[in-house]
Amino acid sequence: MADCIFCKIVEGKIPAAKVSESENVIAFLDINPISSGHTLVVSKEHFELLVDVPDKLLGDIIAVTRRVAKGVMKATGSDGFNLLQNNHRCAGQSIPHVHFHIIPRKIGDHSWFNWKPKSSNGQEIETLRDAIKGNIL
Amino acid sequence: MADCIFCKIVEGKIPAAKVSESENVIAFLDINPISSGHTLVVSKEHFELLVDVPDKLLGDIIAVTRRVAKGVMKATGSDGFNLLQNNHRCAGQSIPHVHFHIIPRKIGDHSWFNWKPKSSNGQEIETLRDAIKGNIL
Repeated sequence: MADCIFCKIVEGKIPAAKVSESENVIAFLDINPISSGHTLVVSKEHFELLVDVPDKLLGDIIAVTRRVAKGVMKATGSDGFNLLQNNHRCAGQSIPHVHFHIIPRKIGDHSWFNWKPKSSNGQEIETLRDAIKGNIL
Repeated sequence: MADCIFCKIVEGKIPAAKVSESENVIAFLDINPISSGHTLVVSKEHFELLVDVPDKLLGDIIAVTRRVAKGVMKATGSDGFNLLQNNHRCAGQSIPHVHFHIIPRKIGDHSWFNWKPKSSNGQEIETLRDAIKGNIL
């Protein structure tokens, strides 16, 4: 896609610190890392959202993600990692080209969300469950 | 695994608001949702971490995740969602059985991270890139 930064990286028109490249998937360091070793795993073909990606390609992406995450963990000596994939701007997606964040974590790094998990009641849960079940194709 | 809550849900020994079930994957509402419709997608077989899961099963899990996410979006009328998968306690993994969070988001919900993206310099990035590349098997 003409104006997409990630497409330009895929095409080699913008440089990136690539750590892995296969037929359909590329992985490179995030230029604004949340932690050292923060890596993006990106579909070479342009899709905006997770739900747009065909299952076969999604399988390729997640398999690469798994392999790259192992390498990131070893290279950075991290204690864990978050895999994060944002869909739409309201969810923090700044580049509208599907990508997975591998975010290395250390014990005591105090990085976290401001999200507050809530408790939920049985009726609410049943209503939601039925609504979601009814919308899964 | 004997003491695993998610294994007990898979075996039907603990109730859950299931929205999807296939041969290898189950999806149910999070009992402490970050937002309405917060759903967990779980491997039926017990693995602790993303990196432990065989590629084929990982492909199944992400394909189910994609399908369930579409249903969650429709049912909740959300504007986007985060896919989050935490590895090890330092990364927020509270149940040591691999699972993906689908977290519906709305415009202006102000839920976000306290993570601060940093800028990084060229030398640092090259060193990291080489270290990660050298550790990807």
